[in-house]
Amino acid sequence: MAEPVATHVTEIRVYYEDTDSEGIVYYANYLKFAERGRTEMLRAAGIDHPTLWDVHGVGFAVRRVSADYLKPARLDDALTVHSSMTEIRGASLSAQQTVRRGEDDLVHLQVKLACVDRAGRPARMPLPLRNALHAIQNDV
Amino acid sequence: MAEPVATHVTEIRVYYEDTDSEGIVYYANYLKFAERGRTEMLRAAGIDHPTLWDVHGVGFAVRRVSADYLKPARLDDALTVHSSMTEIRGASLSAQQTVRRGEDDLVHLQVKLACVDRAGRPARMPLPLRNALHAIQNDV
Amino acid sequence: MAEPVATHVTEIRVYYEDTDSEGIVYYANYLKFAERGRTEMLRAAGIDHPTLWDVHGVGFAVRRVSADYLKPARLDDALTVHSSMTEIRGASLSAQQTVRRGEDDLVHLQVKLACVDRAGRPARMPLPLRNALHAIQNDV
Amino acid sequence: MAEPVATHVTEIRVYYEDTDSEGIVYYANYLKFAERGRTEMLRAAGIDHPTLWDVHGVGFAVRRVSADYLKPARLDDALTVHSSMTEIRGASLSAQQTVRRGEDDLVHLQVKLACVDRAGRPARMPLPLRNALHAIQNDV
Repeated sequence: MAEPVATHVTEIRVYYEDTDSEGIVYYANYLKFAERGRTEMLRAAGIDHPTLWDVHGVGFAVRRVSADYLKPARLDDALTVHSSMTEIRGASLSAQQTVRRGEDDLVHLQVKLACVDRAGRPARMPLPLRNALHAIQNDV
Repeated sequence: MAEPVATHVTEIRVYYEDTDSEGIVYYANYLKFAERGRTEMLRAAGIDHPTLWDVHGVGFAVRRVSADYLKPARLDDALTVHSSMTEIRGASLSAQQTVRRGEDDLVHLQVKLACVDRAGRPARMPLPLRNALHAIQNDV
Repeated sequence: MAEPVATHVTEIRVYYEDTDSEGIVYYANYLKFAERGRTEMLRAAGIDHPTLWDVHGVGFAVRRVSADYLKPARLDDALTVHSSMTEIRGASLSAQQTVRRGEDDLVHLQVKLACVDRAGRPARMPLPLRNALHAIQNDV
Repeated sequence: MAEPVATHVTEIRVYYEDTDSEGIVYYANYLKFAERGRTEMLRAAGIDHPTLWDVHGVGFAVRRVSADYLKPARLDDALTVHSSMTEIRGASLSAQQTVRRGEDDLVHLQVKLACVDRAGRPARMPLPLRNALHAIQNDV
């Protein structure tokens, strides 16, 4: 990437609820971790869910996610989710996220979100929201 | 109990999502199984969620649950949830549920539900709904 | 695709546990539905989890998943998961899955699974397992 | 209770994954929050899961849980789980837990756990473990 993109880090602890009978974190649960990471990235910039809906009148719906599972996480692991926004467009945004244990990358995720109105229809992002997102992108 | 109470049976398969790293079904997930059982018991009597809300104008909120864990379920187990209503009152109902694998009782649950309006406030059950519930109680 | 690939269909009911406060199925939960579908596709061919591990000595670990979310599912929806294996290789397999409500496609998933031994290391698929998978691919 | 019992506090944030289509936290998910609280209470006393299994040779299995739902939690709520051990016996322990939002009690839980060996059979608690638990009880 030509320009560096700011990265937000969220800490996640692995509990029994996250694991499965193979002794590892169940594959769908990394999408929960990723969403916690995106939520905290937005919250750090003053964009929590009530603000999104009540101030900006829109929300975000996941349109596409891809996840590459490199190494498994296990019970009690202390993980970090590293999140950055890679593209902010008129009605959508893309994020890149990595779940790590220490220096080890465990899962890479690419997420595309659409801006939607209360009825779930595609909506353009209001300018103040876009500006807030650009501020995150440049220096979380 | 003086009078026999009809019992509804729902089949549940255990998948990876239900298990934890001890190799058994995670304790909170039996509450999911129990709710599927209650939902199917009501659906069998024509009371699915849209009917509850749109026809009767009320819903049910869990006020109290207790669960006794006797034996663990494991991956791939074919379970049954046995549900019966033990008490139907003006604004609440009680259910008794057992999760079984074959003849073995795995978990016993007691659940108390309150009838609520759309704002989540306690509400009296409309008579047609009470009648439908009594019909379930007597011969699911 | 040059050759038709057999498709396995699994029925899924949406319960409260699957939904979130936007009133729709939470995005990670479609991965649970997809895994139920893959498990039932394999079970229909006599390859349940105990058989995999105890007879063939291997299991499958998800290496990559991508999901395209087209339309949301809601509480009480009766869904189907349509699963087919698109590629069977020496140590991995690929599946294509669609979650549908009636004729509507809701979510498209592509999943790549690696064959692993009990320690989670990549393993070649034993020939009887490969043959069983090819049989599924050609006529579930 | 004659003697005051020390209380451990764990912070929990409510994410979409925790909510359901009624707009509130799904009833089974409070049991997840409660287990995070118990895990953190034990971790604070040096008894994490590896220590339990590898040093003491035992674990804890939930035998009974009861939950009273007083008020619902919602998306983005910042909750606390207040956990205390009310009884420590030779092969079991009881805990009392409250999920709160600020000063409001949302859910009260009573949990009974059995000490088990690796095969899941009841086991007496080793003395060092009992002593560690008594230390938690008296001053977390």
